[in-house]
Amino acid sequence: MNLLYFLDLTGTAAFAISGALAGIQRKMDLLGVLVLGMVTAIGGGTLRDMLLGATPPFCFENETYLYVSLGFSLLTFFTHRHLSRYHDALLYFDAVGLATFVVLGTAKALAYDCGVLSSIILGVITATAGGVIRDVLSNQVPLILHKEVYASACIAGGLLFAILKIQAFNHNFATVLAAATVIALRLLAIRHKWALPTAKID
Amino acid sequence: MNLLYFLDLTGTAAFAISGALAGIQRKMDLLGVLVLGMVTAIGGGTLRDMLLGATPPFCFENETYLYVSLGFSLLTFFTHRHLSRYHDALLYFDAVGLATFVVLGTAKALAYDCGVLSSIILGVITATAGGVIRDVLSNQVPLILHKEVYASACIAGGLLFAILKIQAFNHNFATVLAAATVIALRLLAIRHKWALPTAKID
Amino acid sequence: MNLLYFLDLTGTAAFAISGALAGIQRKMDLLGVLVLGMVTAIGGGTLRDMLLGATPPFCFENETYLYVSLGFSLLTFFTHRHLSRYHDALLYFDAVGLATFVVLGTAKALAYDCGVLSSIILGVITATAGGVIRDVLSNQVPLILHKEVYASACIAGGLLFAILKIQAFNHNFATVLAAATVIALRLLAIRHKWALPTAKID
Repeated sequence: MNLLYFLDLTGTAAFAISGALAGIQRKMDLLGVLVLGMVTAIGGGTLRDMLLGATPPFCFENETYLYVSLGFSLLTFFTHRHLSRYHDALLYFDAVGLATFVVLGTAKALAYDCGVLSSIILGVITATAGGVIRDVLSNQVPLILHKEVYASACIAGGLLFAILKIQAFNHNFATVLAAATVIALRLLAIRHKWALPTAKID
Repeated sequence: MNLLYFLDLTGTAAFAISGALAGIQRKMDLLGVLVLGMVTAIGGGTLRDMLLGATPPFCFENETYLYVSLGFSLLTFFTHRHLSRYHDALLYFDAVGLATFVVLGTAKALAYDCGVLSSIILGVITATAGGVIRDVLSNQVPLILHKEVYASACIAGGLLFAILKIQAFNHNFATVLAAATVIALRLLAIRHKWALPTAKID
Repeated sequence: MNLLYFLDLTGTAAFAISGALAGIQRKMDLLGVLVLGMVTAIGGGTLRDMLLGATPPFCFENETYLYVSLGFSLLTFFTHRHLSRYHDALLYFDAVGLATFVVLGTAKALAYDCGVLSSIILGVITATAGGVIRDVLSNQVPLILHKEVYASACIAGGLLFAILKIQAFNHNFATVLAAATVIALRLLAIRHKWALPTAKID
């Protein structure tokens, strides 16, 4: 339980860094960088909670998430020129965040008595909606809609977790297996540059 | 009641097809096409329910809407080259969906004790917000903001329904009359290419 | 109390005018202008209420906000060529709206037992999210993310209000002092063209 909370905060920090970096590349000012960093880190879970009616959302109930995402966004703003050095480490932390967010989101939806498809969708929203909002605020087509980056890994992890839970497997076992699946698929997708098909247009 | 539910699912399917087609035209991959199709079909009702506090929203309470919108989005992805043959039929189904969504949305808002203007707005949101989210995610100015396509028909239908309900007319009568009005206005607007005025800029 | 309600409606009107003017400049039709005007005026408070779970949101509970924002958006559509004459007055009304929205939003969040950081964020969202939605719907990067216009003034006002309230200062005193701070900072920022730093990119 404490490990999962630690991984959740790790993912929050990693997502905040990636969002803040996007803000810097898009020439936003300090406020814009902080907003993009925080939105990327907590936007997905916040939208999930709004959809579930679990308001105020998790990050207002436990402001640690706000402080972590604000702190790492600020840190990124002032140290971003040194961050490229940690590019590979950031990818790993990002994959950890993705996996944790999917599993926690799917688990929360199931705990709210949502059906399987709803729960998987809410798990995927938890992991990806922050990045979608970041791209919409930057006036770009969200990356995950036209270029596979990680959504399939999230769907697979959410589906696996939901099945294991419904089959009454141990909660921790389901969590670890589903999260490991997301991380493995995500890293394999990066290494092999997997992409989804697009429809053929004549 | 059962007819209305059938029409609601018909509209959901028609909106999913139009959203998925938009995703294909905008060169999104499979996931992007599914997201645009589903968002177009269920985004309006979901936003209405979030605004009303009716959470989890209708499509999580009854996952049939999720499966219908997912299924027809998938179908569109794989068969879109044959769909142009059914262009006119799709316009009719789209008008049916528009009418059903407006009436159901306005009725739900009134049932939640919202005022007349709020209820009409929520009816229009039910019918149009999915398309707005689709366009925002595609990085385009929402079609209904700069080119009349159907919002006026929705406003007229929602207003008519609210007036009939407040005047204590029979619920089914109000539903049929308001829905028929939306469908008629929508088809007339297509035929005669009606457009709203824009402000004169010197 | 009645003064605050009057200022709130004044701010609503000023925001509706600025949103409708943006819609006109962006060549939207009548519906688009009304939507942009209303969204700018009530979008921030609506998002705050959705996040707090205070649904239906304030403007559905008290439709006066809807009628004021709709009315002033309509007025702007038909008289916009004469409005440039009142440019300076509009800036003052806009600053009043900003200040009122921040203070009311922060106060509402504190009343819902949110923490300090959450409350400030919700105050800033109340004042700025309407403009962000306006820009997203217009397919533009939100102004406040890349060019300082008023967010810092909002943050300062929200922070001051939260501190004064926690220190158990009189509610009216805290309201007036925080609102005056926002107005003063906002007008000084306009006069001196203050801007936030951007990150240095090599």
